Amino acid sequence: MNRKLIGVDIGGTTIKIGIITYEGELLHKWEIPTDKRNSANHIPEDIWNSIQDKLTEQHIERTSIVGIGVGAPGFVDTSTGNVSVAVNIGWRNFDLGQAIHELSKLPVYVDNDANIAAVGENWKGSGNLAENIIAITLGTGVGGGIIANGHVINGTNGTAGEIGHITVEPEGGAPCNCGRTGCLETVTSATGIARQAKEAVDAGKDTRLKQRLERNQLLTAKDVFDLAKEGDNVSQSIVAHVTDTLGYAIANVATVINPSKIVIGGGVSKAGEDLLRPLRYAFEKYALPRINEGCEFVIAALENDAGIYGGAYLVKQNHS
Amino acid sequence: MNRKLIGVDIGGTTIKIGIITYEGELLHKWEIPTDKRNSANHIPEDIWNSIQDKLTEQHIERTSIVGIGVGAPGFVDTSTGNVSVAVNIGWRNFDLGQAIHELSKLPVYVDNDANIAAVGENWKGSGNLAENIIAITLGTGVGGGIIANGHVINGTNGTAGEIGHITVEPEGGAPCNCGRTGCLETVTSATGIARQAKEAVDAGKDTRLKQRLERNQLLTAKDVFDLAKEGDNVSQSIVAHVTDTLGYAIANVATVINPSKIVIGGGVSKAGEDLLRPLRYAFEKYALPRINEGCEFVIAALENDAGIYGGAYLVKQNHS
Repeated sequence: MNRKLIGVDIGGTTIKIGIITYEGELLHKWEIPTDKRNSANHIPEDIWNSIQDKLTEQHIERTSIVGIGVGAPGFVDTSTGNVSVAVNIGWRNFDLGQAIHELSKLPVYVDNDANIAAVGENWKGSGNLAENIIAITLGTGVGGGIIANGHVINGTNGTAGEIGHITVEPEGGAPCNCGRTGCLETVTSATGIARQAKEAVDAGKDTRLKQRLERNQLLTAKDVFDLAKEGDNVSQSIVAHVTDTLGYAIANVATVINPSKIVIGGGVSKAGEDLLRPLRYAFEKYALPRINEGCEFVIAALENDAGIYGGAYLVKQNHS
Repeated sequence: MNRKLIGVDIGGTTIKIGIITYEGELLHKWEIPTDKRNSANHIPEDIWNSIQDKLTEQHIERTSIVGIGVGAPGFVDTSTGNVSVAVNIGWRNFDLGQAIHELSKLPVYVDNDANIAAVGENWKGSGNLAENIIAITLGTGVGGGIIANGHVINGTNGTAGEIGHITVEPEGGAPCNCGRTGCLETVTSATGIARQAKEAVDAGKDTRLKQRLERNQLLTAKDVFDLAKEGDNVSQSIVAHVTDTLGYAIANVATVINPSKIVIGGGVSKAGEDLLRPLRYAFEKYALPRINEGCEFVIAALENDAGIYGGAYLVKQNHS
C-alpha cells in the first residue's frame, strides 16, 4: 500500500488541501472557502469532511493516509496543535490539532503557515532540503520561516521567524499592523511598496507613477518595479530603498542563522532578477564575507502550493 | 564506575581544562598556556599531555572518561572537528578534533568557543536548560551563541550566531575588526564603550571621564558605568546609546529566535542591573509584545568556566 500524506494550508479566504505521496508527488489538490462565522469553529469539520469526500471520490483507502499536517496563520504551540492567536481567522486558544485529530483519528501536526511554507519550499521547491534556510514571503505582509539544523525554529511561544517585524527604522518609521513602527513589513511588503509610491505622488514628485495612479485608481508593487525598469527615477529610488532595507534585514538574520539558501517568495518576488540583483548587492554590503560566501538567493518555486507540501512534509518528518 | 566528561576551552592566551562528572559537578580545573609557535600545531599534544598528567595525579581511570568537548575561537565544522579559521590562534584548516582523537582515542567534539560557552551557561549557569536561548558576551569583542530546539545553531559554515557582527549603524559606523563598519561590536563591546568615552573627552565635552583618563591613562567600560551612576551626563548618554543599540540588536535576534532566556555575560555584564534596566527598556521598545512576554534577561553565572562546562555538555549530549 502506498502511504500518503495530507497537507492543509489555512488562509483567510480559502483553505488549500493536498494529497501527496510519501515521495512528494502531488496527487490531488483543491480548495474550500474559509468559514469564519461562529468564531470560525466549524473549520476542523469542514476540512475533514472535504478530505473524506475526496478520498471516497478518488477511491483512496483511508488507511493509506499517514497523517495530516496543517499550516495556520497565527501563533501555534506545535507540541499541542493549539493556535493561541490567529487574528485573520478569529481564533484565540483554539485546539485546531486536537479537533482535527478527534474527527479523523489520524496523527495531526500543526505549525505556523509561514513556517509550513518554508518547509514545503525546502522539500519540493527551491530549498533542496537545506539544513539551514531562511524563507521570506513578500506579500500583503512579510512572512518568514526559518529552518536550522534541519528543523523549523518555532521558539518559546511560536513567535520565531517573524522576520516582517524586525525593526529597520528605529526612529520615524511607518506604522505597522503589529502596533509598533518601522518594521521591515512597512517598507518591503507589497503594501509598503505601494504606500511609498502613493506618498511620492502625493508629495508632487515628478514620476510616471502619477499617470499610473490616475489611470488605475491604485498603485501596486508591480507598477513600481515596472516603471523602475522603464527608467522612472522615483520608482528606481523606491526599489533602491526597498532592496537596501531588505538586504540589510536579511543580512542581520543571516548573521544569526548562517543559511545556505535564502528563498524569496510572495507577489513581490515575481520581479525576479530585478529584485534579486540589488538585493544581493545590499546583502553583500551588510553581511560578513563568510556569511555571504555560504549562501545563495533563490526565488521560491512552489508559489501557492508551498503550504500543502510543507504540511505533508511535517507528517513525513514525524513518521520516517 | 562514575563516568566523567572533559571540557576544554582554547583561548588566545590560556587553555582552560576541566574534569566534570556526568551530572555536572566540576571536579578539577586548571589552565595551560596557549603555545602559538609553529602555527600553534602543538596544542593538541599539549592538551592531551596535560589531561593525562591530571588523570594520573588524581588517580582517575582513563576508561571512566566518556569523551572530550573542545571550544575553539574560530569557525568550526562541527561534523569533522576541523577549524577552518582561528585568527587569534593562527590556525587555518586545522584538524583539531581529529588530532586530539588520534592522541586520546576518545570521542572528541569541537565547536566555536562562544557556542560552547552558551551551552555551558545553559546547562549549569543561568540558562536552566532552556530550549531556546540567546547568549551574548560583551568583552573585548561581542560574542554570541544561540540554542534553538535544544541544539546550538552552527549554520552552514560555522558562522551562525555572530551577533557581534550584526550591522547596527548602516551608515557612518565605526570600523570593525571584521573589515566592515557599524557592527554591534563597535558600539557595545568593552572596547567600543571605552572608545566612545575617549572620543567624548577628545571632543572637549564637559565630563569627569576627562579626569579619569588623566589619572589612569586609559578609560574602561567600567569607568563609563561608574561615572554614569555618579551622575556624569556624558557617561549617562554613552550608557543610553550602548543599551539602546544593544536592545535594538537583541530584539531583532529575538524576533528570529523567540527565546525564553537572554543571557548576558562578559566583562561589561558586571554592571548588572545598571546594564539590564535600560536594556530591558530598549528591548521592549523594539520587540513584538509576544516576543517580549516570552523571555527574560539574566546575567551569566559561570563567568570563565562556561566554556569547560559547555565542552563537557557536548560530550554528554552525544552520549546520553
